[in-house]
Amino acid sequence: MEDKKRYEAGIQAMEELFSSEVRKGMQEMKQISPDFWEMIVSFGFGDLYSREALSLSQREIVTLTTLITQGAFDQLKVHLEAALNVGLSKEEIMEVIIHCSGYVGFPKAVQSMGIAAEVFKNNE
Amino acid sequence: MEDKKRYEAGIQAMEELFSSEVRKGMQEMKQISPDFWEMIVSFGFGDLYSREALSLSQREIVTLTTLITQGAFDQLKVHLEAALNVGLSKEEIMEVIIHCSGYVGFPKAVQSMGIAAEVFKNNE
Amino acid sequence: MEDKKRYEAGIQAMEELFSSEVRKGMQEMKQISPDFWEMIVSFGFGDLYSREALSLSQREIVTLTTLITQGAFDQLKVHLEAALNVGLSKEEIMEVIIHCSGYVGFPKAVQSMGIAAEVFKNNE
Amino acid sequence: MEDKKRYEAGIQAMEELFSSEVRKGMQEMKQISPDFWEMIVSFGFGDLYSREALSLSQREIVTLTTLITQGAFDQLKVHLEAALNVGLSKEEIMEVIIHCSGYVGFPKAVQSMGIAAEVFKNNE
Amino acid sequence: MEDKKRYEAGIQAMEELFSSEVRKGMQEMKQISPDFWEMIVSFGFGDLYSREALSLSQREIVTLTTLITQGAFDQLKVHLEAALNVGLSKEEIMEVIIHCSGYVGFPKAVQSMGIAAEVFKNNE
Amino acid sequence: MEDKKRYEAGIQAMEELFSSEVRKGMQEMKQISPDFWEMIVSFGFGDLYSREALSLSQREIVTLTTLITQGAFDQLKVHLEAALNVGLSKEEIMEVIIHCSGYVGFPKAVQSMGIAAEVFKNNE
Repeated sequence: MEDKKRYEAGIQAMEELFSSEVRKGMQEMKQISPDFWEMIVSFGFGDLYSREALSLSQREIVTLTTLITQGAFDQLKVHLEAALNVGLSKEEIMEVIIHCSGYVGFPKAVQSMGIAAEVFKNNE
Repeated sequence: MEDKKRYEAGIQAMEELFSSEVRKGMQEMKQISPDFWEMIVSFGFGDLYSREALSLSQREIVTLTTLITQGAFDQLKVHLEAALNVGLSKEEIMEVIIHCSGYVGFPKAVQSMGIAAEVFKNNE
Repeated sequence: MEDKKRYEAGIQAMEELFSSEVRKGMQEMKQISPDFWEMIVSFGFGDLYSREALSLSQREIVTLTTLITQGAFDQLKVHLEAALNVGLSKEEIMEVIIHCSGYVGFPKAVQSMGIAAEVFKNNE
Repeated sequence: MEDKKRYEAGIQAMEELFSSEVRKGMQEMKQISPDFWEMIVSFGFGDLYSREALSLSQREIVTLTTLITQGAFDQLKVHLEAALNVGLSKEEIMEVIIHCSGYVGFPKAVQSMGIAAEVFKNNE
Repeated sequence: MEDKKRYEAGIQAMEELFSSEVRKGMQEMKQISPDFWEMIVSFGFGDLYSREALSLSQREIVTLTTLITQGAFDQLKVHLEAALNVGLSKEEIMEVIIHCSGYVGFPKAVQSMGIAAEVFKNNE
Repeated sequence: MEDKKRYEAGIQAMEELFSSEVRKGMQEMKQISPDFWEMIVSFGFGDLYSREALSLSQREIVTLTTLITQGAFDQLKVHLEAALNVGLSKEEIMEVIIHCSGYVGFPKAVQSMGIAAEVFKNNE
């Protein structure tokens, strides 16, 4: 795959995952570091999210879980919205968090559930 | 749910997830700390894995991801087998690891892929 | 122990640990996910804090340490108050943080000390 | 406190915590990096363990907890022995691990309990 | 080295690293815990930053990297300024973050780049 | 840059960093997952290590630091060798570890120093 195609695949994946508002916010990175922006789009979304072996909703289960585990709560918020956008139900999302409580402990799970409740409210 | 039922639900979930050999190894905990063993079975497997909002294969995607993220490679081995047992394909499992590389970095992803290759070999 | 007893033991432990204001805030989880709330109370506080092998002040030393280590600063605030409530002195709490500096590094220890100073001020 | 006193205080703390065999093993660091060895003894043990606000057994509760939380299992082994040496009972040590399960998740707690069982066996 | 010299070396290192405003903020720790303040200055800055085997700009590359890796974003802000003060260019600092993306994943790298952009703006 | 060039740049960076023995070992990944291998080479080494804003020895300071911080000791071993290969001295490498002790705590720093001593012995 040529680099231009990787970038285009990344942009397309981002359109499926994120609202136009979220994508607009992300583009600030383009000003800060055009090179880093290119990597985020081409590798992060083009190389990874565009692959076929997992569906986008399976990928968001992976993404939510790793963000909960590493306590990356700012990014979690954005991917909770993405999870809803690619078809995971609120019940499934909350269940990912509940399942995590046994693997990462309650502090991170409780904080994640609080953030999920906010995101759900804003997306009603 | 009574406590006895929680324990029984946990034992049943463990039978779906793990080979009899793995379960036998796990039971050493019963000798070390009967109370901790009871919590592992009743809470870890009874309360969490027996719930319905996610399938066992979705739960193993969550479990693999959190173990990769926290670098818990001993437990990863056991859950890679469990993932195969509940119906995830080798391709899907490798894809979980590949997806994680963008979220946890290559060191943990590369180590996880090496362990997966061993587990796959032993389960051919 | 029946489930009802586990829940009651959890509620009782929470009353010993937290002010009524904190407990009221925690109950928002009851609305978000009644199932998760039940696990937090019955497992997190009923199964764990109600056991006898460690005193509540010893348990709070464990809790503060794990929260400092994982950088869970929101939960740390609540448990700094709990630590005072179950009888740890300010000097002992600061000493837990100082001891941690050699094990988790100064960034997390310094941030924890700053939060402790705020909590102490609010509890004078 | 002069530097010589800090070093002496560190050596004395190490004698209370560790067996002569363990201390002998630790001294290999003296050959690798004399400067780093001096810091470990003077800061790690002299400045931290010699302070009075917490007892050595309280300090080992902190140390075990942070090692469990960060998955530092090699160091955990040594400090499980130290915990026994400064008077914590096996029951108290296992309870620290059980309490941690709710805060760091079961994978790290289970692995820690397995290591504790080995250490207890070797110290019977 | 006597303790007084360690403290003085620490104060001198802090003057090379931080603006007077930042140092003034740090001194609040002196009120909270004079003992902890003494350790931060004498060990954290005196023992570590004053050593000769690495330059201050190399030390800030180490410091930025560990803070990015552990997600210690509050401390990262202060050390991004320190990195500029000891002569790292904006381009080099951004490159440290970009290099980290392959080792810690994009969530922490993206958050770090956003903080760097703010710090650069305030230091123009 | 075309994909073929990214891969070639990655292979060239790996040749500068690693011995032929290490590179041969890494190529096992090519059999396990050709796609993941391609990402490691093209993104991990081609996109990241081939950039000009940092020298290879500065990049290895970043890499060592992040591996020490996340406790990725298997990868650390390989990159300690790479650090020597790109011109860092043993003294500088040990100093990176010593500096880290104040940021990640002694357990990880001590373990890293032990591994460094082994690598240095094998490379005499």
